[in-house]
Amino acid sequence: MDYINENDLDFIAVGAAILGSGGGGDPYIGKLMAKQAIKEHGPVKLISADEVPDDELIIPSAMMGAPAVMLEKLPNGSEPEFAFRALEKYLDQTAYGVISIEAGGINSCIPIYTAARLGLPLVDGDGMGRAFPELQMVTFSVAGVSSTPMVLCDEKGNRMIMETVTNDWSEVLARTATVAMGLSSMISIYCMDGQTLKRSVVRGTISLAREIGQRIIESNRCKSDPVEAILDVTHGFRLFGGKIADVTRDLTTGFIRGKVVIEGTEEDRGSHFELDFQNENLLARKNGKPVAITPDLITVIDREKAFPITTEGLKYGQRIIVIGIPCDRFWRTEKGLMQVGPRYFNYDIDYRPVEELAKGLAS
Amino acid sequence: MDYINENDLDFIAVGAAILGSGGGGDPYIGKLMAKQAIKEHGPVKLISADEVPDDELIIPSAMMGAPAVMLEKLPNGSEPEFAFRALEKYLDQTAYGVISIEAGGINSCIPIYTAARLGLPLVDGDGMGRAFPELQMVTFSVAGVSSTPMVLCDEKGNRMIMETVTNDWSEVLARTATVAMGLSSMISIYCMDGQTLKRSVVRGTISLAREIGQRIIESNRCKSDPVEAILDVTHGFRLFGGKIADVTRDLTTGFIRGKVVIEGTEEDRGSHFELDFQNENLLARKNGKPVAITPDLITVIDREKAFPITTEGLKYGQRIIVIGIPCDRFWRTEKGLMQVGPRYFNYDIDYRPVEELAKGLAS
Repeated sequence: MDYINENDLDFIAVGAAILGSGGGGDPYIGKLMAKQAIKEHGPVKLISADEVPDDELIIPSAMMGAPAVMLEKLPNGSEPEFAFRALEKYLDQTAYGVISIEAGGINSCIPIYTAARLGLPLVDGDGMGRAFPELQMVTFSVAGVSSTPMVLCDEKGNRMIMETVTNDWSEVLARTATVAMGLSSMISIYCMDGQTLKRSVVRGTISLAREIGQRIIESNRCKSDPVEAILDVTHGFRLFGGKIADVTRDLTTGFIRGKVVIEGTEEDRGSHFELDFQNENLLARKNGKPVAITPDLITVIDREKAFPITTEGLKYGQRIIVIGIPCDRFWRTEKGLMQVGPRYFNYDIDYRPVEELAKGLAS
Repeated sequence: MDYINENDLDFIAVGAAILGSGGGGDPYIGKLMAKQAIKEHGPVKLISADEVPDDELIIPSAMMGAPAVMLEKLPNGSEPEFAFRALEKYLDQTAYGVISIEAGGINSCIPIYTAARLGLPLVDGDGMGRAFPELQMVTFSVAGVSSTPMVLCDEKGNRMIMETVTNDWSEVLARTATVAMGLSSMISIYCMDGQTLKRSVVRGTISLAREIGQRIIESNRCKSDPVEAILDVTHGFRLFGGKIADVTRDLTTGFIRGKVVIEGTEEDRGSHFELDFQNENLLARKNGKPVAITPDLITVIDREKAFPITTEGLKYGQRIIVIGIPCDRFWRTEKGLMQVGPRYFNYDIDYRPVEELAKGLAS
């Protein structure tokens, strides 16, 4: 039997940020909350999707909005479980377990917090296998699962139950509510039975995040190569190494959109690398040629210790390595690419898998 | 026993717009909807607040947002009753009757529509005795009634149940949702039992609106003075008569804010009149001196037939009369004036009743 204990939170927070592909936010508050909850209520049982009976209810627990806001507008701590319980009550059904919506700093920690507080098991998986900026961007959507009903709460005690006609409308209405609530809220959405879960979930995300984080931390401790460890666990690719020469950011659209220019060092000396992001990293180009394209994961890590750097944390002068990781198979389907492929983000290029694009780079 | 039939709708729409104090919107769509519902389901029984048993539930039905939008973004027709029924279900209680939130073109018609469709009586009263722009600006709030829970629906089928910590938060969250839904929604809010109703309602608004409208239309028909008829029924005051010399409007704050300049004609020749509005008319000044101040009702009517002109309909060159009508006693309390008095709208003046201010004008 697998459990998540307090120490695991340090590993999960780091590993989930690697999977966050530059997004998913700073896990600081979420990690503290989850650790405290485990201290009070004991370790959280981690179960596989296959262990959930077909007719039992699984409810995701997540934070919506700007993670940075949580540092000043602290949660009161009861919002996640209130959202969860309100959905149970609205459905007149008791949940069997909790699940995460996305892999990323904050949203890998919140479901652990909720599971600990409610004494429920956590399903080892999520709805993205990475982070994405919008609610409809989940494998659950690709598999036809409805986002409705959803519940949204803020730290003041305001609460909403929403039923929307499409998953896109959930995003629109929950986003405006979250902004009005002060840029962050806690939600429960995409509740589903075990049978639906099994055909729509990205499996093993929590244990993968834990393994990635653990390997990075242990490699640093025993002076072995943490980058190699990441690539080994994630089946990822080293795309580039260099020094950040320029970062531009534009917040006018409500997202952090921007570009990073990296000048190659050591084996990449003389080469030029560009990274486009919108909350998450979207497109990586080496000398003008794409080497990784959304929905594949593109993560920036610091050169020395291989800790992940989110798009919010990128700064001039940082010495970094960029890695690419193949995304979940759901995203490579036609429907998946329509939702999160390069054309959705206004790039006039076709998606090609990172395995293919990065082939030449390894030499 | 009093009933509202199809013909009454023509009277109510006109009379409610007189009470709308320049706001409340064009009743065109609402009147059509209510007439059609009465044609299909029969007349609506009109009951006084005192006829509602103390422990029975009353639920308001209203439109939120920009009435003009309804002309292009037509309701699908089931939103008001869906909002109403969703609130019943959420409370696990069956409603005894329907009530209106405000007196004004659209929101005096929608509750009649809802009552007709549901086969329920309509309470003769409302929560303002006039129109106001925000959800918390109701006598129910003054009397301590909670806006929670509330339900909000759009014509596409999106639905929300909200619980908020204050009535002000209901306004904020419902407003942003309404804007995101395309600027209009249908709501049920301020549900209450008969006992609460009796201590918080403005009584007789529907029958008053009907009487005002009927007197205007009949006066026009038999060539008697419709202005006199209005003043007689409403205990109102003729404040000024003239020609609109200028109208300025500013929509940047999400409300229609503006000012009308009127040059006096006939008995008011040589005098100058200014009217400030924010959706509703807020402040009337003759030769620079206040003659009517919010929350008293200030309504512009056309000189010829005495039909009401909303702040949206004011135009250069219109020959008009401005009348002032005493507001309900709730608004003249300290709590009432805090919510809707001149200082709430950033005027550095004290409220004084129109009876007092208009005294000199009648001579």
